[in-house]
Amino acid sequence: MSAVGVLGVGQTPYVTRRADVTFPELVREGALLALDDAGITMDDVDAVVFPLAPDALIGVGNGERWCVEALGAAGKPFMRVNNGGATGMSAVIAAWTHVASGMFDVVLVAGGERVSESGSAQSVLNKMWDVGYERPIPLNTITMLALSAVRYMHAHGADEADFARVTVKNRRHAALNPLAHLREPVTVEDVLASRVLAWPIKLGDACPSSTGAAGAVLVSERYARAHGLRPAWIRGIGQNTETFWMGDRVGPRMLADHGDADALAVAFERAYAMAGVTDPAGQLDVAEIYAPFSSVELHVIEAAGLCGKGEAPARLAQGDFALGAKGTIVNPSGGVLCSNPIAVTGVARLAEATLQVQGRAGDRQVEGARTAVASAIGGDHQFYASLVLSADLEDIA
Amino acid sequence: MSAVGVLGVGQTPYVTRRADVTFPELVREGALLALDDAGITMDDVDAVVFPLAPDALIGVGNGERWCVEALGAAGKPFMRVNNGGATGMSAVIAAWTHVASGMFDVVLVAGGERVSESGSAQSVLNKMWDVGYERPIPLNTITMLALSAVRYMHAHGADEADFARVTVKNRRHAALNPLAHLREPVTVEDVLASRVLAWPIKLGDACPSSTGAAGAVLVSERYARAHGLRPAWIRGIGQNTETFWMGDRVGPRMLADHGDADALAVAFERAYAMAGVTDPAGQLDVAEIYAPFSSVELHVIEAAGLCGKGEAPARLAQGDFALGAKGTIVNPSGGVLCSNPIAVTGVARLAEATLQVQGRAGDRQVEGARTAVASAIGGDHQFYASLVLSADLEDIA
Repeated sequence: MSAVGVLGVGQTPYVTRRADVTFPELVREGALLALDDAGITMDDVDAVVFPLAPDALIGVGNGERWCVEALGAAGKPFMRVNNGGATGMSAVIAAWTHVASGMFDVVLVAGGERVSESGSAQSVLNKMWDVGYERPIPLNTITMLALSAVRYMHAHGADEADFARVTVKNRRHAALNPLAHLREPVTVEDVLASRVLAWPIKLGDACPSSTGAAGAVLVSERYARAHGLRPAWIRGIGQNTETFWMGDRVGPRMLADHGDADALAVAFERAYAMAGVTDPAGQLDVAEIYAPFSSVELHVIEAAGLCGKGEAPARLAQGDFALGAKGTIVNPSGGVLCSNPIAVTGVARLAEATLQVQGRAGDRQVEGARTAVASAIGGDHQFYASLVLSADLEDIA
Repeated sequence: MSAVGVLGVGQTPYVTRRADVTFPELVREGALLALDDAGITMDDVDAVVFPLAPDALIGVGNGERWCVEALGAAGKPFMRVNNGGATGMSAVIAAWTHVASGMFDVVLVAGGERVSESGSAQSVLNKMWDVGYERPIPLNTITMLALSAVRYMHAHGADEADFARVTVKNRRHAALNPLAHLREPVTVEDVLASRVLAWPIKLGDACPSSTGAAGAVLVSERYARAHGLRPAWIRGIGQNTETFWMGDRVGPRMLADHGDADALAVAFERAYAMAGVTDPAGQLDVAEIYAPFSSVELHVIEAAGLCGKGEAPARLAQGDFALGAKGTIVNPSGGVLCSNPIAVTGVARLAEATLQVQGRAGDRQVEGARTAVASAIGGDHQFYASLVLSADLEDIA
């Protein structure tokens, strides 16, 4: 299998609203940042992969069509990938297969999110559940993950302060990231005192609805060598799917435990096996993981093998996973909790992981980072994707 | 580049309505037919690619999520591809990249369409146009292609009878295809006398709104050899995109001529270059091409290089392209004009091409066929995909 490199990445700042650009202009902004970072132009791009899901969030039907020319992509192969919140990383994986197939040397992943155009994001996201039994509960992404948080508390003895500490860490990181949406530092007390959305999830435990764009340029090993380039390298890829029905994830006859993230753990294991990672906590310097609510980050850290099940709260309380600590630093960008431009949140994870392993992450840089893992979650925690990156092909022996 | 084979294909009959199954059950039906044809089960499948676009046609938001378990795909990588009418073939191409990358040996493409759930398919499809200038005209797929048909008539001296002859040929073919939706033979006079939808397109020139499912199993050369299997082979892949705006395809300053299909011709050329096809009319036995209206088939035949621009009407009038004629037979299945299950229409083209090159197409078999080309069109004739297939890797010298 030929190696695939990440030659450049780009992200706009993530904000609540962008009234100064149309959706295609926004997407173009992110794409140009990625192309500039890669030192190439659209003329050098062989194919485009475009992440978007679901349409209704951006207030435009079939947004992919409007973006072809905004990207300068007319005349090139163009593929839209649509996997819920995992869409951005699924698009990166689709681009990886494009390059690894040997058919394309340079593939651009470029997309954007403009959730400010949706009057109620939750009423759009509610559509993902079974229409007969589950949608009317009413399930939405907040109530779904409140169920998971309660289960995590029950199984592992965690409490609301444990969740709040995730937010405190990520906001501290986001304060160092000029692109992050929520950058105001907060205390555990601030989070605990914030408005309850669906107990135990409070406003301080929740991601924002972000507008922004992100892009990445993937290249073949052949192209990188021919041009004397030093991209970051995608070393491992893992994907998995979980059961659709929430009713199968709770109760005494559950098929999967909604409090943990066992199906995501399989996606991580697949990426680790491909990359040769046998000791994630020892081999990985950075984790840019998809966790839109504070409670989710705890079980994703565990699924990634960075500590045992139920151990994340204590580790976090003793200062681990935060910038400056020893071991793997989790979400030095501030993560999804501080910026969630849904269609490109998975692209942003790749972008941040790339900047980290190349030592280009500015104030949020993890010192000496050479390796990273990134992940994404889509649908009702149904679609999972993960990537392992390294600075050189020699990293991860 | 390692070769990718088509080990099995499956299609349900295409009909107006299926009240006996839910959408996931329908998708499962097509998938099981493909798995059975391949002689494998879901246990043997490494990853799934799922074609669907747009959601509103099937009356369910995010239909991909509901289908994971219906396909038995929980625990496997799963990717939704969403490229308008090209979606089915784009999904096949995504599956091709999955296999060609070396990461997966067996990939299932499985999807379904249930357009009967949409009160008005055209009001859904109308969403694909520019909201400011073009949607209010009102553009829909019929009026868009009526503009193209008029331009074709003007440029190439064709008339309504030339279009009608396409329908006559395809209905004659569909009468031999037990899966086709519209199987009633018609005459040129019948078509000319049918109700005008948007002149010069009449009901007899238009595809039906079909409900049905289709699937295909793609395998690596390594897997085929290890198991002593003889799949059909995907020899060439081509994709291209056209300008989004209809206003840029008409008038004295047009960037592309809406009467022809020059951007699709590029997609064909790319597939031919990869496959080593230098004389399409001489080397290809079968063409299963995407043409939802009779007029479209004429310019797609020309874009595929099966005759020169403007020559298709005369060739058709003298009996070419029809079962029993010499040279390339076009749409022996009856084509999209007789069955259009949008999400899987591109999968159906692959399925029919596979059956033909393997001599398994029953009454619609093109005698001695060893090679085929297939194509799909998506959006407002914006996304193009094509494939070249052969029975053996030695075909197409």
